[in-house]
Amino acid sequence: MRRFFRHPVRLVPVGFLVAILLGTGLLMLPQASAEYEYTPFTVALFTATSAVSVTGMSVVDTPTYWNEFGLIMITVLTQAGGLGILTGAALVILVVARQLGLRNRLLVQAETAEYGLGNVRGLLLRIAAIALVSEAVITLVLAGRLWLGYDYPPGRALWYGLFHAVQAFNNGGFALYPDSMLRFARDAWVCLPVAAGTIIGGLGFPAIFDASRTWRQPGRWGVATKLTIWGSLALLVVGFVGLLAAEWGNPHTIGPYGWADKMLTVGTQDAVLRTGGFEFIDMAALDEESYPLLLGLMFIGGGSASTAGGIKVATFFLLAFVMWAQLRGEPDVTVGRRRVASTSQRQALTVALLSVALVAAGTTGLVALAENVRDYRALFEVTSAFSTTGLSVGLATTLGEPGRLVLTVLMYVGRVGPLTLGSAIALNTRRRLYRYPEEQPIVS
Amino acid sequence: MRRFFRHPVRLVPVGFLVAILLGTGLLMLPQASAEYEYTPFTVALFTATSAVSVTGMSVVDTPTYWNEFGLIMITVLTQAGGLGILTGAALVILVVARQLGLRNRLLVQAETAEYGLGNVRGLLLRIAAIALVSEAVITLVLAGRLWLGYDYPPGRALWYGLFHAVQAFNNGGFALYPDSMLRFARDAWVCLPVAAGTIIGGLGFPAIFDASRTWRQPGRWGVATKLTIWGSLALLVVGFVGLLAAEWGNPHTIGPYGWADKMLTVGTQDAVLRTGGFEFIDMAALDEESYPLLLGLMFIGGGSASTAGGIKVATFFLLAFVMWAQLRGEPDVTVGRRRVASTSQRQALTVALLSVALVAAGTTGLVALAENVRDYRALFEVTSAFSTTGLSVGLATTLGEPGRLVLTVLMYVGRVGPLTLGSAIALNTRRRLYRYPEEQPIVS
Ligand SMILES: [K+]
Ligand SMILES: [K+]
Repeated sequence: MRRFFRHPVRLVPVGFLVAILLGTGLLMLPQASAEYEYTPFTVALFTATSAVSVTGMSVVDTPTYWNEFGLIMITVLTQAGGLGILTGAALVILVVARQLGLRNRLLVQAETAEYGLGNVRGLLLRIAAIALVSEAVITLVLAGRLWLGYDYPPGRALWYGLFHAVQAFNNGGFALYPDSMLRFARDAWVCLPVAAGTIIGGLGFPAIFDASRTWRQPGRWGVATKLTIWGSLALLVVGFVGLLAAEWGNPHTIGPYGWADKMLTVGTQDAVLRTGGFEFIDMAALDEESYPLLLGLMFIGGGSASTAGGIKVATFFLLAFVMWAQLRGEPDVTVGRRRVASTSQRQALTVALLSVALVAAGTTGLVALAENVRDYRALFEVTSAFSTTGLSVGLATTLGEPGRLVLTVLMYVGRVGPLTLGSAIALNTRRRLYRYPEEQPIVS
Repeated sequence: MRRFFRHPVRLVPVGFLVAILLGTGLLMLPQASAEYEYTPFTVALFTATSAVSVTGMSVVDTPTYWNEFGLIMITVLTQAGGLGILTGAALVILVVARQLGLRNRLLVQAETAEYGLGNVRGLLLRIAAIALVSEAVITLVLAGRLWLGYDYPPGRALWYGLFHAVQAFNNGGFALYPDSMLRFARDAWVCLPVAAGTIIGGLGFPAIFDASRTWRQPGRWGVATKLTIWGSLALLVVGFVGLLAAEWGNPHTIGPYGWADKMLTVGTQDAVLRTGGFEFIDMAALDEESYPLLLGLMFIGGGSASTAGGIKVATFFLLAFVMWAQLRGEPDVTVGRRRVASTSQRQALTVALLSVALVAAGTTGLVALAENVRDYRALFEVTSAFSTTGLSVGLATTLGEPGRLVLTVLMYVGRVGPLTLGSAIALNTRRRLYRYPEEQPIVS
């Protein structure tokens, strides 16, 4: 057990795999489908992976294919996946901090205090409490709205509220409507709680705790927190303005709405775009110019150690700072009066390049395996699966088994993270006791 | 002049721009076109940029649109661009070596000696001599073949030989046949000299000189040389095997050939694939599975400080070593018993990410500006232009002015290099005299 924890990086991929296989077994049971028949293995595997990885992509029509037991399973798997990520990430940060050892003890004490990680049990409870309170509030608002505004019976309203609240906070993306959230695109009582839950869950607790401790003094936030919070704000603005401009006159999306409804719909879709995965705008009807924007935002994703996927906001902006320093000819990479350690730079680089390689390989695989797939659709579904966003332009449901497996693998790898998965496989536990002489090759 | 040379990085983009504008002016003259009419500015600009950047992409049919004066201009511009790159790169390496200053004097002397850079004039003459001798040999072989095998009159055979020899060695890619080199796809007397010239010009002299000094002891090569030479070999093998497998049974390409012709054609196309730009296989008729392979190989490109484009072979493989070190949890990035300096890593990262961003932006721009462009075609032309490969699936000739301008800018930026161009704009000549405290943010 102790040796195991010395390399916690190996626990993460195994933990997710166990959860997915358990979920697959349960979803295959006849008790889970509306027709009370066995669900094929690849469908159950896809759905379980999609739920545990909080992606929300589906190959069957969620509300009609599964019965209530199946839908409860999806809820439980989503909640387990989401909480597993949040608490697991907190544990990894703690363990990493401890491994830094005596040399950095003072630094670590300062840091763990700053992140509020002084006490493992306290930390986990705090995260669980925030998750459950957020979900309860969203459940009540949604249930109330469905009950009063749409005449649902109270029990049904509560179930629908709970289901979508869990999906929203965990950035899950499954919906009980065949058109996802399109019917609520202009209903602020649905849009706002879903958007708020998605943003909180997608920021991640390291950033939230750090920022909330010194929220009056943003200058004292850690580098990762600054990058995550200011970066997320910047991406929200870019997505909002870009999507509004591209779709303003599109008759198939927000064209017919008044300006206030346009802002509400686009703002909500923007909030759930990088990771949430609900559709408030029909993804298959978007203007051509919206797709590159969406691809970029999905690929970047949300906050570190959050329920969001992608390469992460902090990774993206850290790399921007690295490039800027290189172009300026600066010896150090500095973010807000702090030098960024070269290990962090190397980590960000590895995540970004592995992610580009995986998306390219996945798209190539999907194009090779599926018939008559236009590239941008394959690229969209692959990016959406890898970034655990779950948005779809309609390709996923038409894929055969090989194509489904490609997306299943991408959702798993995207959730575990290419860096974590790669390290779990490649990690060298023996240390080299000598260093080679340095050379400065000119490579471009 | 001295202050200018202290930042030689600023000379490169300006030099190319001057050459392109001069070429544009000359190509616009009525004396250059077959119809003796003024050539429109965007056509002349595109052609001059394509020649100076040794890309070889064209928006008009080269052999019928231009007259002999125009074709001689294209030859001169290609030769000037190619030699300018080779000698300019050598100068930059020398200046960089000098700027390292007293502290590293011993190291620099060793390095410049190793690269044979002891004497600027001698170096430049040596490069020019190798270029001209290579071109002369290729010219003679091609001219002889056209004269004896295809019944060209001797003068015409010599002119055709010279034109294509200059294009081959400089990785230019213009051809005097409307079908590029398709008619010679099974003629070893044409295939082999073109392939050899392309490979030599595309390796770059730093690697060639370094390797030739100690060719019996590859262990003593510099890191950049090892990455470039072993990496180029690996890419040649990957391209050969991949293309052969994908096209083996394709009735529109090599399907009808015998196995020996298949190997010859694919081997030659493979050699000119990453940067040369001649077509020995019809790019528009390739199997769907060949496109991702081609896109990847073009994006990687050829050797550093060579006439090839792309992010460069050494950059690509250095990043692979960086990722591997990160996944293994190694503190140092080592290539063949040498630690790689973190500045080199940062340089490689910046080149790769800026290139990804530029290709993505270019593709988005082309899709937005051109009507009815399927994404993979836009991505192909953009990657080909940016990597100065010049291969085309036929989109370039159908583009309107805005689309042409996008490709023109990409050829220029690709040739100058995003790092050089970015540095020329952003370089900070004042040094900071203090360092900020270090932080190690967790970003993924
Ligand atoms: K999602
Ligand atoms: K070329």
